[in-house]
Amino acid sequence: MRAQVFFTPGEVDPAAIQGATVVVIDVVRATTTMVEALANGARAIYPTASTEEAVRLATSLGRDDTLLCGERKGVKVEGFDLGNSPEEFSADVVEGKRLVMSTTNGTGALVRVQEAERVVVCAYTNLGAVADSVRGAGHLVMVCAGRVGRFSLDDALCAGHLLRRLGDGHDLNDAARAVAALAGVVSADEAFLRSTEAGKTLEEIGLGADLAICGQVDRHHLVAELRDQALVAAGS
Amino acid sequence: MRAQVFFTPGEVDPAAIQGATVVVIDVVRATTTMVEALANGARAIYPTASTEEAVRLATSLGRDDTLLCGERKGVKVEGFDLGNSPEEFSADVVEGKRLVMSTTNGTGALVRVQEAERVVVCAYTNLGAVADSVRGAGHLVMVCAGRVGRFSLDDALCAGHLLRRLGDGHDLNDAARAVAALAGVVSADEAFLRSTEAGKTLEEIGLGADLAICGQVDRHHLVAELRDQALVAAGS
Repeated sequence: MRAQVFFTPGEVDPAAIQGATVVVIDVVRATTTMVEALANGARAIYPTASTEEAVRLATSLGRDDTLLCGERKGVKVEGFDLGNSPEEFSADVVEGKRLVMSTTNGTGALVRVQEAERVVVCAYTNLGAVADSVRGAGHLVMVCAGRVGRFSLDDALCAGHLLRRLGDGHDLNDAARAVAALAGVVSADEAFLRSTEAGKTLEEIGLGADLAICGQVDRHHLVAELRDQALVAAGS
Repeated sequence: MRAQVFFTPGEVDPAAIQGATVVVIDVVRATTTMVEALANGARAIYPTASTEEAVRLATSLGRDDTLLCGERKGVKVEGFDLGNSPEEFSADVVEGKRLVMSTTNGTGALVRVQEAERVVVCAYTNLGAVADSVRGAGHLVMVCAGRVGRFSLDDALCAGHLLRRLGDGHDLNDAARAVAALAGVVSADEAFLRSTEAGKTLEEIGLGADLAICGQVDRHHLVAELRDQALVAAGS
């Protein structure tokens, strides 16, 4: 397998990933929240880059069974139904609903890679399910959502742990080699997430409790896959 | 000390580094070559972002004692005196000369950070000298030149080894934590450089021999520092 990691969505050349399986990672918090929502019965999640586009799409889908979700600077967008905290997306809130979601980093990353052959989202909470699901890919591209165009350790380490689950013998790019080595010496857990830039920022705005779910490795055995521009629980 | 690493020059906010000591790293090959040139007696090196600017500056400095240096796609720019191979910059060629230099990644990075309080260049060849020189900084910013806006393992690992020379107890950003951990498990040498994307690309264009110098840790005890927009050997 050819396996590449990119630390920011901007580094990804959309033309170079057309035949690839792309894994989008935004541990704190977008992909953790997406996995949680689908595990709790949401029908589909429509990622959008801008909040304006989210509002337009939610309106055209019909507001009856659609929830408008997302954050800017970590905080729920004014007028939206939900923010980006995993625990907001419980079964009693999201079951049977369509979600339109716009976050600072994660949803834009998904939009950027949507022309790839296959797009799945990964968090610590579904690490094993993703590893099982992408094991047969010829070209695997892991895209870290990062933090506003910069490296983010929570995402990079998750990519490293995903690579380690896939075993040795793959053709890795520089960034993939770096994160695989890193994952060999740094384990993923809530305490570690709390020490990262993303974790500290979340604590500062009073949402540090979200990290308890973000750090739960293999909480769900669920693959969330992009189909017709919406994420759905694959094989369910 | 507050210590930050950025994997690409584009991630650096010029306004945020005004009071900082900035270390620019482009192991394969610009900063290795700069250290080599100054160690071999070059008077000063003027980095420019574009080759056109390099030609203009060399003309205005006077072509008698000025050498025009640099590469695009690894290869010497047509009409230039020297390329970007460290061994080209021997004492018999560069002693007493001013060099104007433009490379794909490294010189642009230097231009981007030139408003910082202090700017030095670092390669494996002068790692110890740089560590000694920046030890007292309050805010240290390590800027990896990267590869055309993407992560480059040779530069990142060099930043990690520089951090390890500075010891523990510093306030690190996510990228600095990642490279320090990486440097704890990956040592720097010619063989490792040869395995990186930059090393492989250099081999492909027939310049793999350059890696022998790029991988020589502490080959020179020399700090190359930006003064009036030119790099000079500091304290010499």
